[in-house]
Amino acid sequence: MIQDPKVITNLSSHHLFSSLNEVQLSTLLRNATRRTLDEREVLFRQSEPADRFYYVSHGIIRLYRTSPSGHEKVVDIVREGQCFAEAIMFNAQERYPVTADAQVASEVIGIENGSFHGLLKSDNELCMALMRQMSIRLHSQLNEIENLSLQNALHRLVNYLLHDLQSPNDTLTFDIPKRLIASQLGIQPETFSRLLRKLEDNQLIQVSNRDLKILDRDGLYQLTRDNQPLRARKP
Amino acid sequence: MIQDPKVITNLSSHHLFSSLNEVQLSTLLRNATRRTLDEREVLFRQSEPADRFYYVSHGIIRLYRTSPSGHEKVVDIVREGQCFAEAIMFNAQERYPVTADAQVASEVIGIENGSFHGLLKSDNELCMALMRQMSIRLHSQLNEIENLSLQNALHRLVNYLLHDLQSPNDTLTFDIPKRLIASQLGIQPETFSRLLRKLEDNQLIQVSNRDLKILDRDGLYQLTRDNQPLRARKP
Repeated sequence: MIQDPKVITNLSSHHLFSSLNEVQLSTLLRNATRRTLDEREVLFRQSEPADRFYYVSHGIIRLYRTSPSGHEKVVDIVREGQCFAEAIMFNAQERYPVTADAQVASEVIGIENGSFHGLLKSDNELCMALMRQMSIRLHSQLNEIENLSLQNALHRLVNYLLHDLQSPNDTLTFDIPKRLIASQLGIQPETFSRLLRKLEDNQLIQVSNRDLKILDRDGLYQLTRDNQPLRARKP
Repeated sequence: MIQDPKVITNLSSHHLFSSLNEVQLSTLLRNATRRTLDEREVLFRQSEPADRFYYVSHGIIRLYRTSPSGHEKVVDIVREGQCFAEAIMFNAQERYPVTADAQVASEVIGIENGSFHGLLKSDNELCMALMRQMSIRLHSQLNEIENLSLQNALHRLVNYLLHDLQSPNDTLTFDIPKRLIASQLGIQPETFSRLLRKLEDNQLIQVSNRDLKILDRDGLYQLTRDNQPLRARKP
């Protein structure tokens, strides 16, 4: 039984629990376990019966699979505030497909699959609320991926500009199609054009036909260093 | 009614539909609509009745909110192969909280909320399967975010090393604590140490006490340019 108010507050902000009412949450916590793990301590082993899923209240948990030849493959690294092995519960699977051990000294809360499954089976509205939480989270994570990918592309482009422009007047002539440079940098052509345009809008470079001129070398450098977003294009 | 086999194949690989059986999918598609949109064409407006959610089979859809003062805020950009407005359906909300328009010429498939809601209400196993799909997707997206964040941190670190080491023997002396440099670069201290160690393992730099020496300037540069992953640390 979990009673620590801090643990309960953290846990209930996770999307799996945020839609539960007070009665439902205390039903779950009545059968929950709290376990501390030393570095490298195993929480459960691959193919053991899966009767609980876990919330990491502290530390880092590693999930890995061992092949018949003895080779270990890390499947997931789970951090504070995240749950793991809940996908198994949704399918009422019976065995863990991975081994879980602690990467550092950790603490996990174990939620009984049966208790949570029971709540979901008896309360269709709860299923709907949970799916809504998950949908919202999926969208916000996709946005984060999009932003990070753009930042990565920007870093590669700026790095290319800073490295390749050693000429005294800071000018580069595109002697190959821009499309090829984009591909060399691993950037989609549309993203490449979009980034060049944003750098122009921020008065860091100037592009005319096949010539690219750096207007503000320090500005470019600061951009990748401070990880600051580019200003949006003026309307 | 949707009958195009290509559209059906693409749609049914989306996590919202991948758990539906053939009968359930054709029930949905019987009431589905297919709509092409010109650039800038509005699909639905904020506060209109929300009777459908959408799958983007082609193009890009922009979702935005308009404040009472007339200011537009983009809430989401939805690309090919993604759904939008399904979170509303899970909560049986009645009105769209955003306006949706096409960024480029696009095509969307509209799924009737009532049909999908009906399937979910009558089939608890389907809810479970859907939640499992969403769980798996949430985990894989989190991993992608983790990898991208690490790549971003690496780019910033390498950019810092390439820019700040102008000394003839390519050596930098940390005259401030490493923790401060990490913070200046917007990198967590543990990530900063981990990246330095990986660069050492890849024989690109050498760190001894407070001195950092670049061993392979071109190698460092190639790293951020090719976006290639760092080799894992030798055991």
